[in-house]
Amino acid sequence: MATLQAIKYNDGSLEILDQLLLPESCTYISINNVQDAWSAIREMKVRGAPAIAIVGSLSLAVELRKLATPETKKDLHLLVKEKLDYLVTSRPTAVNMQLAAEACVKLSNDLVDKASVDAAEAKDVIVKHLEAMLANDIADNLAIGEHGARDIAKKCGNKDKLRVLTHCNTGSLATAGYGTALGVIRSLHKANLVDQVYCTETRPYNQGSRLTAFELVYEKIPATLICDDMAAAAMKEFKIDAVIVGADRVAANGDTANKIGTYQLAVLAKSHNILFYVAAPFSSIDFQIPSGQSIPIEERPHSEMTHTGSIRTAAAGINCWNPGFDVTPAELITGGIVTEKGVFKSDQLVPV
Amino acid sequence: MATLQAIKYNDGSLEILDQLLLPESCTYISINNVQDAWSAIREMKVRGAPAIAIVGSLSLAVELRKLATPETKKDLHLLVKEKLDYLVTSRPTAVNMQLAAEACVKLSNDLVDKASVDAAEAKDVIVKHLEAMLANDIADNLAIGEHGARDIAKKCGNKDKLRVLTHCNTGSLATAGYGTALGVIRSLHKANLVDQVYCTETRPYNQGSRLTAFELVYEKIPATLICDDMAAAAMKEFKIDAVIVGADRVAANGDTANKIGTYQLAVLAKSHNILFYVAAPFSSIDFQIPSGQSIPIEERPHSEMTHTGSIRTAAAGINCWNPGFDVTPAELITGGIVTEKGVFKSDQLVPV
Repeated sequence: MATLQAIKYNDGSLEILDQLLLPESCTYISINNVQDAWSAIREMKVRGAPAIAIVGSLSLAVELRKLATPETKKDLHLLVKEKLDYLVTSRPTAVNMQLAAEACVKLSNDLVDKASVDAAEAKDVIVKHLEAMLANDIADNLAIGEHGARDIAKKCGNKDKLRVLTHCNTGSLATAGYGTALGVIRSLHKANLVDQVYCTETRPYNQGSRLTAFELVYEKIPATLICDDMAAAAMKEFKIDAVIVGADRVAANGDTANKIGTYQLAVLAKSHNILFYVAAPFSSIDFQIPSGQSIPIEERPHSEMTHTGSIRTAAAGINCWNPGFDVTPAELITGGIVTEKGVFKSDQLVPV
Repeated sequence: MATLQAIKYNDGSLEILDQLLLPESCTYISINNVQDAWSAIREMKVRGAPAIAIVGSLSLAVELRKLATPETKKDLHLLVKEKLDYLVTSRPTAVNMQLAAEACVKLSNDLVDKASVDAAEAKDVIVKHLEAMLANDIADNLAIGEHGARDIAKKCGNKDKLRVLTHCNTGSLATAGYGTALGVIRSLHKANLVDQVYCTETRPYNQGSRLTAFELVYEKIPATLICDDMAAAAMKEFKIDAVIVGADRVAANGDTANKIGTYQLAVLAKSHNILFYVAAPFSSIDFQIPSGQSIPIEERPHSEMTHTGSIRTAAAGINCWNPGFDVTPAELITGGIVTEKGVFKSDQLVPV
């Protein structure tokens, strides 16, 4: 079975998996223009910073392909800028859409000044630029998957079958496709090396039980869901070989900010002599940040912890602590940091 | 404010807190006879093995007090035995009700043979025996609380205020009253030693967020709810002083079976240099069991993990692992095992 695709793009036709309907229903919706993308992003039918940027960019490609070429490159530039400015307002905090918009506006502006290119050619260059984002991102994830799978297999002494544990969702539903940590697991599975994947529920937002479990079932990768308080018991009971998680941001020294619960898994992995890996695009390494201490911890709404839908699951009046992520010290990342450029020890990180 | 009472008994009048309505509503229902108790236990309006045994026994005391004294002690014995046999069928797996019934039937049988006691006196002895269970259990829990609080305060160098973390529910809602681990916390609070209690959600059944949080709010003990994957981050962020949990069973060597997630908290406590305590009645120590390896792990229904009420929270088709408890090795119980007889190191456990 093919890898689950949350974003399907083919010759100017864009469809996305409506993540609001997961895990109940697996339904794709058409994105025919920038307005459709804006609404889908705003309503969180697509989530995850890279996925948002790619869906936004592709929606502009869809529109540009259908549009008659503007009379001048200046007209084209103004149109592109207007559409991108609008897309950025869909979720102002997602920096990836902002960065993608800036890059595309710069390209379009540069083309205005390039005498050898006419308006039709300029439109074509911009469309190709936008379309390339999806392929590039998936290619990076595939490379992460291959590097990670090879390294884990080697460090586990080339065992026949491996048991791996992952946290949160880092798969097709969080990226352009294939995934980072879940991409590594996909690559291990392709190599027939997976005995069992243990995925944590990932409270309070249940990205593990809703999204990762969905992807694992979809692709028939042998998998078992556990609650977050079962991780150590599972490590001991099932003799897990490696833990693989994603990253929101990696500091220059290798300290890694990721979904809350990651730090705890790293401590538990170390105490059970289990390899611990972080998988992320090389661009997630922020060489401006010396260590994890400089990364602020975002607090999220308490309602995520006290309610499931309309059902109250916690006593009224209880105070909550709901940090969105935590920081795992570099020394606990015993396997390495897996990127599309290879697997790095935390003290080997250098800008390239 | 008085301690939350889940079981209220006064001169032949019994009321219990309907736990099915928690945390939405705090409603007491009257238990007027053995039939009422049977239904309340069967429907899980009262839960927890000690609480079930006490509610069952007290319901018989209520009935006996109202009943005209049977003509003979033999008649009384047959009546008592019939009622207790019936109560045991309410939840066959709850061994405490079985043990309580056996003890009472033996007492009643012994009284038949005792020439100096008439039927009215025999009835009185049985009622007093049944009624004593509640008071004895609460007295034991109060003693556990005092021993634990004193030991924690001492081992924490008599700090002004302590930050403690607990798991699952071990309070008034799980015992006859006051509680074991939560009893220790109540005693710390009475001594004005609590800065903050961190209580884990305790997935998948949410005993922490529903029940422990309810008790802490009810008694205005400063408390914060965390998800199970936030424990290590909380230990680090808030410099927690001690972790205190209950026990389902303690083996002769000190290995302790308790709610799933306990083992993981013990590993995390050790790695953060935090004292780890188990609090339980001395009767929970099973000297017939040499070590935790002999304790089987009960698996519970997957629906606890995949649904909250009628809301699906996990992808359809995902396999689940749902062990009810895990075993914490004695060496991780760095604080000690707190009982009504005092606080013991695991290598100091001897039958008394």
